[in-house]
Amino acid sequence: MKPERAPKPGKALRVALLGCGVVGTEVVRLLSEQADDLAARVGAPLELAGIAVRRLDRQREGVDPALVTTDAHTLVTRDDVDLVIEVIGGIEPARTLLLEAMKAGKSVISANKALLAEDGETLFAAAREYGADIYYEAAVAGAIPLLRPLRESLVGDHVHRVLGIVNGTTNYILDQMDTHGAGFNDALEDAQALGYAEADPTADVEGFDAAAKAAILAQLAFHTRVTAADVHREGITEVTAADVSGAQEMDSVVKLLAICERVPAEDGRNGRGVSVRVHPAMIPRSHPLASVREAYNAVFVEAESAGSLMFYGAGAGGAPTASAVLGDLVAVARNLVGGTSGPVEVTYAQLPVLPMGETVTRYYIQLDVADRPGVLATVAEEFARHGVSIRSVRQEGLGEDAQLVVVTHRASDAALSATVEGLRNLEMVREVASVMRVEGDE
Amino acid sequence: MKPERAPKPGKALRVALLGCGVVGTEVVRLLSEQADDLAARVGAPLELAGIAVRRLDRQREGVDPALVTTDAHTLVTRDDVDLVIEVIGGIEPARTLLLEAMKAGKSVISANKALLAEDGETLFAAAREYGADIYYEAAVAGAIPLLRPLRESLVGDHVHRVLGIVNGTTNYILDQMDTHGAGFNDALEDAQALGYAEADPTADVEGFDAAAKAAILAQLAFHTRVTAADVHREGITEVTAADVSGAQEMDSVVKLLAICERVPAEDGRNGRGVSVRVHPAMIPRSHPLASVREAYNAVFVEAESAGSLMFYGAGAGGAPTASAVLGDLVAVARNLVGGTSGPVEVTYAQLPVLPMGETVTRYYIQLDVADRPGVLATVAEEFARHGVSIRSVRQEGLGEDAQLVVVTHRASDAALSATVEGLRNLEMVREVASVMRVEGDE
Repeated sequence: MKPERAPKPGKALRVALLGCGVVGTEVVRLLSEQADDLAARVGAPLELAGIAVRRLDRQREGVDPALVTTDAHTLVTRDDVDLVIEVIGGIEPARTLLLEAMKAGKSVISANKALLAEDGETLFAAAREYGADIYYEAAVAGAIPLLRPLRESLVGDHVHRVLGIVNGTTNYILDQMDTHGAGFNDALEDAQALGYAEADPTADVEGFDAAAKAAILAQLAFHTRVTAADVHREGITEVTAADVSGAQEMDSVVKLLAICERVPAEDGRNGRGVSVRVHPAMIPRSHPLASVREAYNAVFVEAESAGSLMFYGAGAGGAPTASAVLGDLVAVARNLVGGTSGPVEVTYAQLPVLPMGETVTRYYIQLDVADRPGVLATVAEEFARHGVSIRSVRQEGLGEDAQLVVVTHRASDAALSATVEGLRNLEMVREVASVMRVEGDE
Repeated sequence: MKPERAPKPGKALRVALLGCGVVGTEVVRLLSEQADDLAARVGAPLELAGIAVRRLDRQREGVDPALVTTDAHTLVTRDDVDLVIEVIGGIEPARTLLLEAMKAGKSVISANKALLAEDGETLFAAAREYGADIYYEAAVAGAIPLLRPLRESLVGDHVHRVLGIVNGTTNYILDQMDTHGAGFNDALEDAQALGYAEADPTADVEGFDAAAKAAILAQLAFHTRVTAADVHREGITEVTAADVSGAQEMDSVVKLLAICERVPAEDGRNGRGVSVRVHPAMIPRSHPLASVREAYNAVFVEAESAGSLMFYGAGAGGAPTASAVLGDLVAVARNLVGGTSGPVEVTYAQLPVLPMGETVTRYYIQLDVADRPGVLATVAEEFARHGVSIRSVRQEGLGEDAQLVVVTHRASDAALSATVEGLRNLEMVREVASVMRVEGDE
């Protein structure tokens, strides 16, 4: 059943806001400061109908106390509400509130990456059933217009791969390690002192945040269902100063990448599946992603016709996230004024998400070896035994300090990790000092 | 009068294509190859109704000769045509054809930067009058989704400045000069040999192409009318190897920039006007635009809430441009299926375009001077006389080779260029060896 949802042009559209933290407060400020501009662009004024919060006893600057309520469930179904903005975060009660709102015929805007990555499908199904819009640009990479280009601009194209730096905290830490030679722990403490990392940095440094965003990006890029649980995830806590300096010697840099790839079938058709993963990787300094510094985000997209594209900007923060919410709000409000609705995600492609072992990638491996004749032959034999072909090998140092640096050609991750295991067991290999995947370069 | 324009969902939408050159041929190919995907995303199949060309006697691979006609005027008003794609280029007959199409109730997609920069206003007025859509993502920066983010994602934000590398030919030439120390003429010949520059390179190297794109970007960013004729334009033919090596010594790089800026009034309000200009400028190597190599394009946007954003990709070429056209086609077709229309440009802000002299910028000036006491004092006095404050000054060489390198603080372009004139007339200054504006850094 699709409720009647088109107000007359010119009549004010009324907005319910769920959550009034850092992002919510900015949304309230922009709705007030930009009211005239917003009305001109929407074709109708936007009015704040109510703000749902958890606790009433907090002072909120610039927020009219008469609008504040703790009863979010009543607010989202009120007759005088046309649109609902959700900036609470987390799975519940956000999911229930968004579903109740759409069932009551309200269009919704969400900045909730965790929810969209875990259960986007339920939200999209509700949007289709009730003819509601669901927009969520702010859920990935803050203010960077990214979902809209993927959803709309590239809709006539065919995306092969998405490579993204989608977590500012980890990019800041890795940038510090690259620039100042800091170790992981020092760089993390520095990021915490500057407010780039939280006291409990697990969600960032272990890659959970990036994995949620990777799931959302993969779903949009490949029209196929991907949840956060499908994403292979490795964080940056194991990245060492040796990894970073090894990358520098390769004229590369270590970044935590969210990678979404179409994996072609053996016959070259695009049908075998998709690979979605988050892990640290070396990329060449000449790659556009390599110059993404500090806490910035960027997403690199490779498409059939459009070629290589990159979208860069601030990936987090109250004002940038609120800017993305406002962009969505104008789009959804325009749809209401026009009596229409925007595109809803479809997962018609239904490609399987492949296990990490089937992903094709390249490895950089640094080995401390015994400096004696035959060591290179023994090591090379181990690669050959797993069908992994070597692209370059370099010996450094002598005696106690002898090292081999090997970069492979492309092979399955299963074969590559089996090779590393094999190397660890070789008597001539004292230590596998660094292992890092290599991306962004053929 | 708004003609009835919404076909029933599921009914095929019929597309007229005007022009069948490099881009047109790619559009035909994608319409056929991606037919199923496009139908799934639009909600109705897309069919090619006809292709208007100038000459019938040319073989066009993959193009059904039965669809080809030389009578474009009849084609765009045919009852069985729903949408018109214009990839002819130039002012006429493109403008007349687009106006006829919109008057007949067809929505239009254009890749025509020259026309949109010269007379976008007439096209937008027609779109409003006849309730037609006009989309033109492909007109600026090829496949890079840029207009849509500016039109839609940043619609709830406030853009301060747009800095763009929007011409691939000149970026290729300047990149060669930077990388290989080539002079302008050698780099141009190289670009011509590789097909990056045309036999007559005037439109590119004199900045006409970039100026048209700057006008379109400024109009979108500031909701104010700007035509190509309003844009201050300097090309790259005067850029010397000395300019490029001077930039390198400043850890900077020379780029041809399209710059669109809001100029605040004296009281700090955003009302004084806009500055729209195309000229070579030094930007620091740490700026994201500095790493845009070869013939790539990128546009850097500074907005109030979103902060700094950058959009990067291939700025030209048949396939990337066709990808942008297809993205627009899907958006316009979806609007038709939904019986609605997209946003049409509005120029409600009506800000004046300020003359170049009122633009505030910084200069880098390299002087060959007589090496004798008092030269620095005399030079510094000339800056002071025009109210220009010096940020840094460096003396290099001795005797015959003595040079002063001066970088100014921000000042009006009028004061800065008057200073350069004054310096030329100083007896102690043998030559003003290099003058370059400095951007992307406060």
